[in-house]
Amino acid sequence: MSGFHVALLVQKFGGSSLATSERIRIVAERIHDSLSQGDRVALVVSAMGDTTDDLIAAAQRLASRPNSRELDFLLSTGELVSAALTSMALHELGRDAVALSGPQAGIRTNGRYGRARITEIEPTRIRAELEAGRVPVMAGFQGLGPGGDIVTLARGTSDTSAVALAVALGVDRCEIYTDVDGIFTADPRIVPDARKLDLVIYDEMLEMAKLGARVMHPRAVEIAEHFGMPVVVRSSFSDAPGTEIVAESAVPIETMQRVRAVAHDTDVARVTIRGVSDRPGLAHALFQPLADRHINIDVIVQNVSDGGVTDLSFTIAETDLDATLDLIRPVAAEIGARDVAASTELGKVSIVGVGIQSTPGIASRMFGALAADGINIVSITTSEIRLTCLVDKAQVARATELLHDEFDLSAADAV
Amino acid sequence: MSGFHVALLVQKFGGSSLATSERIRIVAERIHDSLSQGDRVALVVSAMGDTTDDLIAAAQRLASRPNSRELDFLLSTGELVSAALTSMALHELGRDAVALSGPQAGIRTNGRYGRARITEIEPTRIRAELEAGRVPVMAGFQGLGPGGDIVTLARGTSDTSAVALAVALGVDRCEIYTDVDGIFTADPRIVPDARKLDLVIYDEMLEMAKLGARVMHPRAVEIAEHFGMPVVVRSSFSDAPGTEIVAESAVPIETMQRVRAVAHDTDVARVTIRGVSDRPGLAHALFQPLADRHINIDVIVQNVSDGGVTDLSFTIAETDLDATLDLIRPVAAEIGARDVAASTELGKVSIVGVGIQSTPGIASRMFGALAADGINIVSITTSEIRLTCLVDKAQVARATELLHDEFDLSAADAV
Repeated sequence: MSGFHVALLVQKFGGSSLATSERIRIVAERIHDSLSQGDRVALVVSAMGDTTDDLIAAAQRLASRPNSRELDFLLSTGELVSAALTSMALHELGRDAVALSGPQAGIRTNGRYGRARITEIEPTRIRAELEAGRVPVMAGFQGLGPGGDIVTLARGTSDTSAVALAVALGVDRCEIYTDVDGIFTADPRIVPDARKLDLVIYDEMLEMAKLGARVMHPRAVEIAEHFGMPVVVRSSFSDAPGTEIVAESAVPIETMQRVRAVAHDTDVARVTIRGVSDRPGLAHALFQPLADRHINIDVIVQNVSDGGVTDLSFTIAETDLDATLDLIRPVAAEIGARDVAASTELGKVSIVGVGIQSTPGIASRMFGALAADGINIVSITTSEIRLTCLVDKAQVARATELLHDEFDLSAADAV
Repeated sequence: MSGFHVALLVQKFGGSSLATSERIRIVAERIHDSLSQGDRVALVVSAMGDTTDDLIAAAQRLASRPNSRELDFLLSTGELVSAALTSMALHELGRDAVALSGPQAGIRTNGRYGRARITEIEPTRIRAELEAGRVPVMAGFQGLGPGGDIVTLARGTSDTSAVALAVALGVDRCEIYTDVDGIFTADPRIVPDARKLDLVIYDEMLEMAKLGARVMHPRAVEIAEHFGMPVVVRSSFSDAPGTEIVAESAVPIETMQRVRAVAHDTDVARVTIRGVSDRPGLAHALFQPLADRHINIDVIVQNVSDGGVTDLSFTIAETDLDATLDLIRPVAAEIGARDVAASTELGKVSIVGVGIQSTPGIASRMFGALAADGINIVSITTSEIRLTCLVDKAQVARATELLHDEFDLSAADAV
């Protein structure tokens, strides 16, 4: 970065970065430093700490199923509070700042309460504030809904607000501030010598996010990739440079076709529908109700057995298990299945890296390393850039360590 | 009230009525009962309990003098939260309700951050919600400011929002729900046999409010009087009918020209500017800076002494004393005064009742009752419907009891 280049940035600060007055002050000082270097900055903020959970709890004390319009009205206040306080902290440092709600900032949505999607950003107000030398502080997680109402976006999507705003403003990059130093080769709590990656390709990030490394929301990564917006994930508590998330074309060829990270996920449950007649439309009948409730299905295995009667297994997030069983049991009864069984004893371990599927020898090294340590692989799924083994939940941590060693991920990257 | 009359009401619930989930539930049940009787209701709500103070404290942790626009943005969230929760509690009882911010409800203001005044109410949205059979739940204490921003009204003015909305909608009456049963002949904590009044005249209420019986904001009373809007003050925790605040013409003649209540106020400080030359423009020079800061001045006494040099005393709220001295001392020095002294040892006791000033014998009974008990009267001020004595702060409670007895206020009213 040239010393004379004035960058226009979007910086997003998550709830843990803003959990207390003291943390808000630290965030304000960091922004103050960016501004002192001549950068122009637009901010997106999440609600402070556990505010959103606290508001949901307050709603649930009053209503078993809170009305969705009213719940959005309530939850939107969490981000308004943190936007106002962050703006005040900037004023205290002599910076002119202006807190804006999602609707004020021009975030238009499809108006679906509780899980709205951004349809358009009209950044007139934010541009005007930037041009007037002010720092716009936009409340994330919200936008304009029907009849001028406020709606909230799907949970965890202040990242999405930030990336979408970055695209709409055409900024140089979008910085996601969080409570970790960046993206690691594995979860450092499991693999102590896990190494922070300087560069990650969008597709790799997407696989890691979906596999439980919830540093950034997958939809935010998708939007960044679609529009080629460079994203940096970094800590709001340190000056470490973080991890840059970039297009494949921006990465040297040497870093490709090799394993880049080991991801794991213990939020896994398996549902098995036993003794069902294998006929066309079976999967549709079973899975459509889950899709309607936004429950993601993963790793479907169907064992063809005698006389056209089969067992069908699939995995879901363990947190979706109760809802899944409620939806699946009536359908299973209707199609004449023998019974429905659930297991929460499995977990996933994955290796991730652009091009690994087409690289000979990687899969066999993975299976070999696990087998050598007596870890049984229940099933395997793959994508272009990922190999996932379903193993015993109790062995997930050990498997993660083994694979991190096997692919030598603590050694410095080629980049 | 006829059994067949369907009333349109505005009901306002204060912060203490909404301090917890349980209280919000009780409020919702009360509204549910009103609706079951066929009434149509529009609600105005304050922030829950101490929310506003908590938000101010959070702001002050980050900024010595929070930016006024950002502070309004922050404080407005308190009423948004209580509006959403109250609406949800109504939904839970099967009532369709809709939380609205001040701007959504059509509250237009003069845009002065922190102490905006309502300039206009455009109740289109509220009317539409009522006509659709829904209960509009409006966030009090806020309205539309410059550039689509949210501004807060002067503190304590959710009452004002409620009365102004009642006028704009042309409702049958405005009900102010609070944590007391109504307006009493004296503060029941000081005078145990103080009696709840069934009817109070606007002007009496205004004097009582200004004298510290902060059941309802004076400006709300003024607006109600100006538009002849009947107001009922009642408890959200009991079924007692409360106190109706009405025009003089609505009160039987027998209740007039007699003492109706004893009000007291210990939030009093006296400032004396000593040794100042008495010349034209003196009071203006001294008091204009206080007026600019919205500090109310009461009971001005000027002793003309030898050689045109005088002492000038005035009383203010004790809570304004520091600010007053900061403003007054430079001016006093500039005009050559000898010094400025302050005392916080005085308080006020007042008798209130329409027509008492023109009723012979009342003033002398007041002074006599106090003198008989050895209470020294420092100074006396009067209005059409009020007689106020400045006495030793330590004697305020005793003076209140004496006057309540002297005018036999625990005996049932003529109405």
